[in-house]
Amino acid sequence: MSRMITVGAAQLGPIQKAESRTSAVNRMIQLMEQARRKQCDLIVFPELALTTFFPRYLMKDRDEIEQWFERSMPNEVTQPLFDAAREFGMGFHLGYAELVEEQGETRRYNTAILVDKSGTIVGKYRKVHLPGHAEYEDERRFQHLEKYYFDVGNTGFNVWRTMGGVLGMCICNDRRWPETYRVMGLQGVEMVVLGYNTPSTNGKVEQDPHLRMFQSRLCMQSGAYQNSTWVVGVAKAGTEDGHQLFGGTCIVAPTGEIVAQAQGLGDELIVADCDLDLCLEGKENMFNFTAHRRPEYYQLITEQAGAVPPEE
Amino acid sequence: MSRMITVGAAQLGPIQKAESRTSAVNRMIQLMEQARRKQCDLIVFPELALTTFFPRYLMKDRDEIEQWFERSMPNEVTQPLFDAAREFGMGFHLGYAELVEEQGETRRYNTAILVDKSGTIVGKYRKVHLPGHAEYEDERRFQHLEKYYFDVGNTGFNVWRTMGGVLGMCICNDRRWPETYRVMGLQGVEMVVLGYNTPSTNGKVEQDPHLRMFQSRLCMQSGAYQNSTWVVGVAKAGTEDGHQLFGGTCIVAPTGEIVAQAQGLGDELIVADCDLDLCLEGKENMFNFTAHRRPEYYQLITEQAGAVPPEE
Repeated sequence: MSRMITVGAAQLGPIQKAESRTSAVNRMIQLMEQARRKQCDLIVFPELALTTFFPRYLMKDRDEIEQWFERSMPNEVTQPLFDAAREFGMGFHLGYAELVEEQGETRRYNTAILVDKSGTIVGKYRKVHLPGHAEYEDERRFQHLEKYYFDVGNTGFNVWRTMGGVLGMCICNDRRWPETYRVMGLQGVEMVVLGYNTPSTNGKVEQDPHLRMFQSRLCMQSGAYQNSTWVVGVAKAGTEDGHQLFGGTCIVAPTGEIVAQAQGLGDELIVADCDLDLCLEGKENMFNFTAHRRPEYYQLITEQAGAVPPEE
Repeated sequence: MSRMITVGAAQLGPIQKAESRTSAVNRMIQLMEQARRKQCDLIVFPELALTTFFPRYLMKDRDEIEQWFERSMPNEVTQPLFDAAREFGMGFHLGYAELVEEQGETRRYNTAILVDKSGTIVGKYRKVHLPGHAEYEDERRFQHLEKYYFDVGNTGFNVWRTMGGVLGMCICNDRRWPETYRVMGLQGVEMVVLGYNTPSTNGKVEQDPHLRMFQSRLCMQSGAYQNSTWVVGVAKAGTEDGHQLFGGTCIVAPTGEIVAQAQGLGDELIVADCDLDLCLEGKENMFNFTAHRRPEYYQLITEQAGAVPPEE
């Protein structure tokens, strides 16, 4: 058997602070046209794909903050992506900043959607693991204010049966947490798609630059292997107004092996034919959860958030 | 600050079916003598270190089975290890097959102990994730009957404050499961020690041999990074009566990087100076669990063992 999804991982180069959403969407449409020529069923765009990675800046004025958020999806600026999806018969994944009213309160989420080949939104995910900090920190070389700008996502880690398989989503820092993949693995996920904006350097401590790429891949590769799922990780890369984001867009097989990876830090499409039936070997043997998992010994994972070391 | 534990990862070459426990212990004592010259505080031996990896054979006779198990620890044969520990001022970790009476029932566990520098057993762990199968499977090139010979361990994943740090244990296939590391990470673990016996080839499906080593390391390295802990993984390696076990003994830093690895498939000691304070950077920032974990979205991990895909 084989159930093939041809996936395009569409890395975006930098989006400067002054670049318009319309320009970013035009760049994405060009990548969709490339993906059509390569017969892609699905194209994956990064986290916060419409704008620069604005959480590196502290803003206090409400209007200034909210200009970075989308109040509806699709909207006038993003409609061409949905039109292209329908015209090309190509699903897509898009990350953006979402502003909504919930129970009379304004909420701001770091959000991603999954759109099918008819241009219909079939799934929405709001980022759970917000990295960084909630207040300005003077000792940092640059800020990472995701906990200031965003509420913790309230969707949980869901999966959707679409495009012939079971697909799930997460966003950026979520990829470092094994719980992210496991919760989707327990719902039979066959492909996790995710976008990220990750600085090339640590804002606080000096760190060997190669290490950050290694750790990012280590998490995606182990998440793939340990749940026997495809993982498609897509970067926004390159230098945004002096701040470099690393690239490393890649497609990871259920064996944990990288089968395609980006070569640069700009707009770049990489493609792989992903047979979802390759997930079966792992799901039926090494990671047959029913046969091998022992939740009675995992209780701490859901009973407590923080670490509690034994008394001295 | 620095809190250094100098660790020796003591890979064992093959133990043939006919080799005595006394011979295996003598080999381990030689490795302890090497470790003493290298100033080790702790030496880590593999899983089932006293005998060949007997779960590859089907045995039905109770006496024949029980000869592979220890009924007490220390016992006459293993006492020299405890004496050397006290004499050398060196802790050790040892895996063995354990037979006990519990509530009037005979139980068999795949067990490991942690012994401190005074030769006192400070911790015991019984393997939770038993791989393989419970009945003879004709289609396999060799058997992996751990579910036949062993009961599921009943200790859970504990940690112990000993040798100046917080140490934990797991065994072989446990290392592939992110829950193993996470449960110890939630108890502040700073060093996980583990042994394994892993065949170089898959008994059922044809597999690229490099892949098995890659996957083993992927799990130990991600477990280390995602919990900001040292991981010491020690193989029994080489060809036991025609069945090859892979080596790959390694010491992994809290960054996820391998800092020492074995070169061969025989008895071999590798050593690293492991500063437990290197765990702090990860535990206080990227993997500050209190700041970033969201157990409310992890509930499936403890609510169900097996995967439940969405309806078609």
